[in-house]
Amino acid sequence: MREVAIIGIGQTKFGELWDLSFREIGIQAGLAAVYDANVASEDIEALYVGNMSAGRFIDQEHVAALIADYSGLARDHIPASRVEAAGASGAMAVRQGYFDVASGLHDIVVVGGAEKMTDLPDAAGAAIQDSAADQQWECVFGATFPALHAMIARRHMLDFGTTREQIASVAVKNHKHGALNPKAQFQKEIKLETVLNSAKVAEPLTMFDCAPLSDGGAAVVMCAMEKARKYTDSPVKILASSQSSDTLALHHRKTITSFEATRQAMRKLTRRTGIEVSQINLAEVHDNFTISELIALEDIGFFAPGEAGKATVDGQTQIGGRVAVNTSGGLKARGDPIGATGVAQIVELVTQLRGEAGKRQLSDVKYALAHSVGGTGSTVVMHLLGVA
Amino acid sequence: MREVAIIGIGQTKFGELWDLSFREIGIQAGLAAVYDANVASEDIEALYVGNMSAGRFIDQEHVAALIADYSGLARDHIPASRVEAAGASGAMAVRQGYFDVASGLHDIVVVGGAEKMTDLPDAAGAAIQDSAADQQWECVFGATFPALHAMIARRHMLDFGTTREQIASVAVKNHKHGALNPKAQFQKEIKLETVLNSAKVAEPLTMFDCAPLSDGGAAVVMCAMEKARKYTDSPVKILASSQSSDTLALHHRKTITSFEATRQAMRKLTRRTGIEVSQINLAEVHDNFTISELIALEDIGFFAPGEAGKATVDGQTQIGGRVAVNTSGGLKARGDPIGATGVAQIVELVTQLRGEAGKRQLSDVKYALAHSVGGTGSTVVMHLLGVA
Repeated sequence: MREVAIIGIGQTKFGELWDLSFREIGIQAGLAAVYDANVASEDIEALYVGNMSAGRFIDQEHVAALIADYSGLARDHIPASRVEAAGASGAMAVRQGYFDVASGLHDIVVVGGAEKMTDLPDAAGAAIQDSAADQQWECVFGATFPALHAMIARRHMLDFGTTREQIASVAVKNHKHGALNPKAQFQKEIKLETVLNSAKVAEPLTMFDCAPLSDGGAAVVMCAMEKARKYTDSPVKILASSQSSDTLALHHRKTITSFEATRQAMRKLTRRTGIEVSQINLAEVHDNFTISELIALEDIGFFAPGEAGKATVDGQTQIGGRVAVNTSGGLKARGDPIGATGVAQIVELVTQLRGEAGKRQLSDVKYALAHSVGGTGSTVVMHLLGVA
Repeated sequence: MREVAIIGIGQTKFGELWDLSFREIGIQAGLAAVYDANVASEDIEALYVGNMSAGRFIDQEHVAALIADYSGLARDHIPASRVEAAGASGAMAVRQGYFDVASGLHDIVVVGGAEKMTDLPDAAGAAIQDSAADQQWECVFGATFPALHAMIARRHMLDFGTTREQIASVAVKNHKHGALNPKAQFQKEIKLETVLNSAKVAEPLTMFDCAPLSDGGAAVVMCAMEKARKYTDSPVKILASSQSSDTLALHHRKTITSFEATRQAMRKLTRRTGIEVSQINLAEVHDNFTISELIALEDIGFFAPGEAGKATVDGQTQIGGRVAVNTSGGLKARGDPIGATGVAQIVELVTQLRGEAGKRQLSDVKYALAHSVGGTGSTVVMHLLGVA
């Protein structure tokens, strides 16, 4: 397999983009990445699109052909493929694009992710998120996606003594980061009390423990490393990609306070690169709920089981801490347009690795980790990036 | 890239499978393929699932994790990925699996496709098919998926003098083939008059010009050729894979009686393999409507533009003719559970290449072609197979 570089990145603002349609969002992100990469459209050989549920959100399937069409790429009849794994859809698109280039199939590939969630009433949009979980054996019995995560949180509190305040502090930290990101949906700091006292969604989780419904798109341009310097002086290297699965329903697991798919995917990354978690000081992890970030940090190995809550309160996961987690604001504050999320993680890591993150820039980043989850840990896709 | 073999195939019966859920359909097909390949479940390293719209048909996204879970593959935490390109979803899954093995990423991969369409009323199921076309610029103005194909048919009749009887004869031929396939949804021959006089769907197309709504699943096991003989004495080789895109909306094309994506994809296959269309005597092509088969045969190059209708009437595309087209019965008679369709095409070609097609077995097949279409020619995925 060849080395693969990211040579361009693009992202729309995330939020309630009532003036933009799905296709406009996808193309805005894609064009930004293509301009950033300085590639000509005729150099682009393939397109991958991560999207969870355009079929349900906007009645439109076949969205990779749609984006290829409206971005002008269909003129050259390039292959355009949509991939889906609920919340991990965007990361899976990144992975497919990575192997497309790594295998030598194509030299330059665009990977995008997009979702348009706010054309529906909020309750309908939230219900669509349930389709990431097991409809037949979880949701039909009333377990919504937030309810499943509330159960995870309860169990984590019981098993490890994790406190409500520790869980809520994830939201406070991610809003603090999001306030420094001009593309974030919420660019406003919040207080711990705000999280604790906001409307209950599924106890113990309140509204501020949950990532919002969002519209948005993100895209990256990948290139064979051997050709990357033709286009950019600051290529970022994809050091490795890993993907793991687990049962769709939570009740089929031995434990619900740890996602084995994350542990497996992280082990694969370490094995393939020889890079240990102790060498990584930047990570975008899947904080669709506050509790999810704590579990991710423990499963990746940044902290021992039960220790991530305390570490968050101690500031170890904020910018300037032991490992800066979700400098973009994460799903919580940057926003979570589902199909775009995994791609936006890569956009943030590349921005940091290039030293272009402005007010939220880390002083020194060598290795950067992206961690994306579909469902309640049923699909995990991870990437490790570094300066080339 | 390495050579890739298909070492196992499986398919459910296609039809209205009211006793089987989506997951049962997927697993039944997958297990059949795995048993046929004689691989142990722990040898399987990745899963790709083609599915168009489980989100809308059964409210369930994230179906690759679902199938990995219920087939026991999630136990080993293997990567499980869903791909979607409307009618070409299954073929796209085949393509992703092919490159997964060809690139050396994994040695043994299972590719499945499934759809459960009959849990909804017929009209709702048919409306979901519209989401393969451009909802914003076609469907919103009342152009249903059958209506778009009716326009294609009208134009073909006008430009080439193609007759209504020639178009209808595709259905007669495919039902004749389907009658020989125990897995087909319709195993019954029909008369030309039946097609001409059945209920009009969108003039000139009647009910018998349209593929049905179907439930069903199909799966194949792929293996690096160098290891294939460990599992089977009759590996079938994937000689090449190609994929092309075109505008989503029909009205953006220079012509609607030819799909440029098919022409491009066929040129790629020829260029990569050196095998000419004249050497191919078996093809499964995308006959979601009768007119689609004629256009496919002309774009692939089996017949000159405007000649496929006459060739069909003359028997040149039936078993024993110049090229046997849709020996399975095609989408028309075998059935069209959308995500399964592209995989079922491969299942049929492998069955023929192995000499296991029973009453519909061709006497001599060297090269076999699969042609799958998403939307009105917006995505085309093609594969060329041969005996190893």
